[in-house]
Amino acid sequence: MSSSFGTLYKVSTYGESHCKGVGVVIDGCPPGLELSEADIQRQLDRRRPGQNVLTTDRKEADQVMILSGTENGKTLGTPIALHVNNRDQRPGDYGDISDLPRPSHADFTYQMKYGIRASSGGGRASARETIGTVAAGAVAMKVLKKKYGIEIVAWVESVGPIQASGINPDTISREEVDKQISRCPDQITAAEMEKFITELKERGDSTGGIVTCCIRNSPVGLGEPIYEKLEAKLAQAMLAIPASKGFEIGSGFAGSRQLGSEHNDLFIWKDNRLGTSTNNSGGIQGGISNGEPILFRVAFKPTATISLPQETATFTGKTETMQAKGRHDPCVVSRAIPIVESMAALVLLDMAMRQESRKSFF
Amino acid sequence: MSSSFGTLYKVSTYGESHCKGVGVVIDGCPPGLELSEADIQRQLDRRRPGQNVLTTDRKEADQVMILSGTENGKTLGTPIALHVNNRDQRPGDYGDISDLPRPSHADFTYQMKYGIRASSGGGRASARETIGTVAAGAVAMKVLKKKYGIEIVAWVESVGPIQASGINPDTISREEVDKQISRCPDQITAAEMEKFITELKERGDSTGGIVTCCIRNSPVGLGEPIYEKLEAKLAQAMLAIPASKGFEIGSGFAGSRQLGSEHNDLFIWKDNRLGTSTNNSGGIQGGISNGEPILFRVAFKPTATISLPQETATFTGKTETMQAKGRHDPCVVSRAIPIVESMAALVLLDMAMRQESRKSFF
Amino acid sequence: MSSSFGTLYKVSTYGESHCKGVGVVIDGCPPGLELSEADIQRQLDRRRPGQNVLTTDRKEADQVMILSGTENGKTLGTPIALHVNNRDQRPGDYGDISDLPRPSHADFTYQMKYGIRASSGGGRASARETIGTVAAGAVAMKVLKKKYGIEIVAWVESVGPIQASGINPDTISREEVDKQISRCPDQITAAEMEKFITELKERGDSTGGIVTCCIRNSPVGLGEPIYEKLEAKLAQAMLAIPASKGFEIGSGFAGSRQLGSEHNDLFIWKDNRLGTSTNNSGGIQGGISNGEPILFRVAFKPTATISLPQETATFTGKTETMQAKGRHDPCVVSRAIPIVESMAALVLLDMAMRQESRKSFF
Amino acid sequence: MSSSFGTLYKVSTYGESHCKGVGVVIDGCPPGLELSEADIQRQLDRRRPGQNVLTTDRKEADQVMILSGTENGKTLGTPIALHVNNRDQRPGDYGDISDLPRPSHADFTYQMKYGIRASSGGGRASARETIGTVAAGAVAMKVLKKKYGIEIVAWVESVGPIQASGINPDTISREEVDKQISRCPDQITAAEMEKFITELKERGDSTGGIVTCCIRNSPVGLGEPIYEKLEAKLAQAMLAIPASKGFEIGSGFAGSRQLGSEHNDLFIWKDNRLGTSTNNSGGIQGGISNGEPILFRVAFKPTATISLPQETATFTGKTETMQAKGRHDPCVVSRAIPIVESMAALVLLDMAMRQESRKSFF
Repeated sequence: MSSSFGTLYKVSTYGESHCKGVGVVIDGCPPGLELSEADIQRQLDRRRPGQNVLTTDRKEADQVMILSGTENGKTLGTPIALHVNNRDQRPGDYGDISDLPRPSHADFTYQMKYGIRASSGGGRASARETIGTVAAGAVAMKVLKKKYGIEIVAWVESVGPIQASGINPDTISREEVDKQISRCPDQITAAEMEKFITELKERGDSTGGIVTCCIRNSPVGLGEPIYEKLEAKLAQAMLAIPASKGFEIGSGFAGSRQLGSEHNDLFIWKDNRLGTSTNNSGGIQGGISNGEPILFRVAFKPTATISLPQETATFTGKTETMQAKGRHDPCVVSRAIPIVESMAALVLLDMAMRQESRKSFF
Repeated sequence: MSSSFGTLYKVSTYGESHCKGVGVVIDGCPPGLELSEADIQRQLDRRRPGQNVLTTDRKEADQVMILSGTENGKTLGTPIALHVNNRDQRPGDYGDISDLPRPSHADFTYQMKYGIRASSGGGRASARETIGTVAAGAVAMKVLKKKYGIEIVAWVESVGPIQASGINPDTISREEVDKQISRCPDQITAAEMEKFITELKERGDSTGGIVTCCIRNSPVGLGEPIYEKLEAKLAQAMLAIPASKGFEIGSGFAGSRQLGSEHNDLFIWKDNRLGTSTNNSGGIQGGISNGEPILFRVAFKPTATISLPQETATFTGKTETMQAKGRHDPCVVSRAIPIVESMAALVLLDMAMRQESRKSFF
Repeated sequence: MSSSFGTLYKVSTYGESHCKGVGVVIDGCPPGLELSEADIQRQLDRRRPGQNVLTTDRKEADQVMILSGTENGKTLGTPIALHVNNRDQRPGDYGDISDLPRPSHADFTYQMKYGIRASSGGGRASARETIGTVAAGAVAMKVLKKKYGIEIVAWVESVGPIQASGINPDTISREEVDKQISRCPDQITAAEMEKFITELKERGDSTGGIVTCCIRNSPVGLGEPIYEKLEAKLAQAMLAIPASKGFEIGSGFAGSRQLGSEHNDLFIWKDNRLGTSTNNSGGIQGGISNGEPILFRVAFKPTATISLPQETATFTGKTETMQAKGRHDPCVVSRAIPIVESMAALVLLDMAMRQESRKSFF
Repeated sequence: MSSSFGTLYKVSTYGESHCKGVGVVIDGCPPGLELSEADIQRQLDRRRPGQNVLTTDRKEADQVMILSGTENGKTLGTPIALHVNNRDQRPGDYGDISDLPRPSHADFTYQMKYGIRASSGGGRASARETIGTVAAGAVAMKVLKKKYGIEIVAWVESVGPIQASGINPDTISREEVDKQISRCPDQITAAEMEKFITELKERGDSTGGIVTCCIRNSPVGLGEPIYEKLEAKLAQAMLAIPASKGFEIGSGFAGSRQLGSEHNDLFIWKDNRLGTSTNNSGGIQGGISNGEPILFRVAFKPTATISLPQETATFTGKTETMQAKGRHDPCVVSRAIPIVESMAALVLLDMAMRQESRKSFF
């Protein structure tokens, strides 16, 4: 288990779905930052289950408490512990599937890796684990916004086969994203998505989707080649989110089919700085931010928990029919939005702090 | 700069294209392993420039020396330093573009990040930097093969718009891959790729491509959730390779368009163990290997260095026409094969060592 | 702030004296270990203030809660969060000294380092911070005992100028140590120490002391040269304890005055293994445990908080007389015992896990 | 094996006494620093064997080569690889003691830990390993001097029972230290030490000694509590040096015998800043530098290799008489001076870089 992330802004999360609570310790947050629980709660509310008809019916208030690291509403530079109690514990829901590892879930691999596993609810592989990440990310975002004016906005680009269009990454805001419960800010597509997800929920099936994220106003110079190139750490961060299956930066997979003469981002002078006329690089060259918007996409698989019957095998290989009764999201992407933003913030702030150190020497 | 990778099998690389040499220090290699320079040279030869008509004409012998860490052909458990001298230094080739940052290269971002940069050849952002990775990966592969029988094979799946088909990841061997100079083991497609790349070379243009990699015989249980899930570290590793733009595991982006009822990998009993009937998960569930082949794809952008003229701007914003004279690969994917395999090996061995530690306690 | 420790058994602590609580997240504890709050409480009780007449009158129940990482009394291999609420908050005690940095305290350096500091009680530099360490160490000890039979026992060797004698490190037990409230198991000296400390308490003065620690039954082979030699990590661990000023292993400073012909530990065969006839090495050779008892000593300075008036200066250099009213220990060494043991356990378990990984490869 | 050190200024060393060479990779050195081989050679020359009659007769030129990371005499911010070839290889000297583990050497523990060991010369446990540390430390010192004016000076305080006096840590310079071949700048004591060491050399015996180190002009605020307090990292660094047995900061062990009313460092205004009237703290309070000189002492044991016959046992427990023929230092402390300074520089620069990052946020 490696539940910590970051070199200078280091977060360590804990908690599984059915213990006393979940949380995170942030070690290395800059001192003197104004910070209240409300700053963090906002993103937790965007993440929590039961927000609307498209998500699981499992309801959790997910109220965050700051246990340490602040005084009089300001960070002290000491570890900030953030904790959320678990409330809605209904282990019975999961009780009857415990000898059958759930297909495309972590039951089998956790059992094999640890020789033991949480009896219910997915334990640490539950989506509930992401609360710590989102809380720590909310704090990071506040630092990034204050120091650099950085904005991080993610949105749903596709749900199953339904693809949005016409979204401008340079201007899109979280408010616009949240206007749709699907979190796809293309209104017409959003309606289709909602209809599709509602149908899946009724049928007991699920689907996946793609999230796009844009980081604006990043300073030039973030990223630590070779092994911690900015896109490399973003890729790690995104693939650490439950259910994610792919990551691409800038032109991504499509870019592999282009010619160099089309794909190269030519330099131009704009906004009083050297920029590029196109952004196939997705804001990163040589593993280092170049001042253009950082643009990436994350693919999520269909939710593994479905109510449809599945022919699968027990740990000892006996074939059985599984029919899950637990509450689940028919599509995770709308709730993944604040998680993607938070992981991005963790990467950016850590990189920014490392670059600040270097800059002080020249 | 973060040029080290791994927790227990830790590698630290150094060197740029035009200094005295490049290399790597491996700290944590298991002791008692038979190791000679030939074990490492094989993969370096697959990586080096000038192998055939499809690659750059820049020739480097890239002879590796073991400087420390072995005696009588066996590893001592102490740091293994591997060094390759730089030979073919022709800085003049690059001299005339030094005040013009090359489009989609790292000249601009390195200059901004460090306040200084290597005068020529891309410095640390040069493909030459990957020699250390490939050398350390070759050692890791030897350990993985001996201890677990793990095989890691990567191949070219597409070059620009040309897509291979019919390759069986369960059986494909490095020998079959190397039969084609394009390293696409689908013979008919390979011929098309070679023709396409040759044409691009003549025109002074370039293209990208996609590499697929399969890891066979991985034990169950590798990967350290949350932030070091196996796919997360593979994603970081792959996006740390120069020119890579995307990563997907198993069903990847395409999987996001499926339904859960199609996508779930149902458990079955096979080969005396619990396996899955499909492998949309790509061999990983919950961030942990499940014993199925680990399958992932990496997208590479078109080579940024092209001979065609480009209208671009100097550091101070003056528009100029750049026409590169340096030798370059019209498509990097064939040479990326051993790099992808090596990065995968670095991830796998580090994860295997961490899991071995855990297993000893239960 | 770097509040985490360890590579495979990694602990991250949080909390200061006057926030909601203090605690620790343990990431990497082996799975399947029986663990209850009672296992941890025992050492916390040995650490807590107000145990007897020799310690501060500040009373804290220091009841630990396991927030995550176990189920049915067994560890899951996931992060174990341990939390202790702060109860006895009397910030008023400290309120009137806030513009005068306390001599030999961390008020001045925290203020300068972070640009802000906790208004009272020492914040993170308070001894209360050690609760997380002790809790995580208690868990580590349980693993070490079960897997290797390792025993870690520390005791008070001196208080101020009063020096114990005749303690046998090979047999001394925690029970014997705890029989004396001074935690010096030499009964006659213990009585002198108690008298001396009681007098100091009445006078409002303080003193220091030396703690000796013995680790028995350590397997051969623990320690990771070069920079993480076993004695190097023990030294780091001990100097991280508040008020510690020195560390020595085996013969230590006195050994520097000997001749090689006296000091060398000659090998002999004993207990069916190769051992040494003397133990000037303190159980470690070349940074690696050699199977003999690991013996080290830690020096603690006199408690900085005293009730006697002190002529000192404000942050702006104005001379004032400080007379502290807060409750404090006249000598910290008796309460330091479980902290020393815990830090030792954190080092040992981390090293043992790293060595287990290596051993699995040969 | 853990041969890397540091978080932002990270060094990774390699090499043993009888392979092709030894060296270090420095990752994270600030860019734009003027750096030549001469800057590094100076400290290597102070470390190398065969300098004078007091040290081993083994002669090594120890010429350093910068393999990467600089151009036109300036650092690029990329990894700096420093390499020293091994020249004077006489494995025969050690050949006849290979089945007898040398007392108080690492032969036995390396064999047990790794299941294999270098056949001669101590391998990685040889003093030759410190070359990498000294080289990396020389670079760190140059950065510290240029940026902060920091001076690091160590000297020999005692050799065996012979103790120096009257050395002023506030003014002592390396030049003064080097005037005596014993590196004890107290001239009269130095003569006694030289005589004592010469006698020991003739008799085939050895002794230990104590090194004191002073770091002047350190900025306030360095050190990362809790586990990376400045004294904790210094302690780790010093105990990682071969043959070291103890560390104390400021008043150290002697301080444990004082009263708080004597020991506390009262604040006074001096040199336009808040300082202290005494320096029992050794320049560190609460794990953070306070602007006073940082003063610490390191104890070294007698050299383990002696020519006198020793009754000891083989790996299988057979008693034999060992009589070493290898060349060795009768006392290591004079050659330890640049190693102590270098390890201190590694700690200081890493801490300074971390604090620079923090400071940029407030």
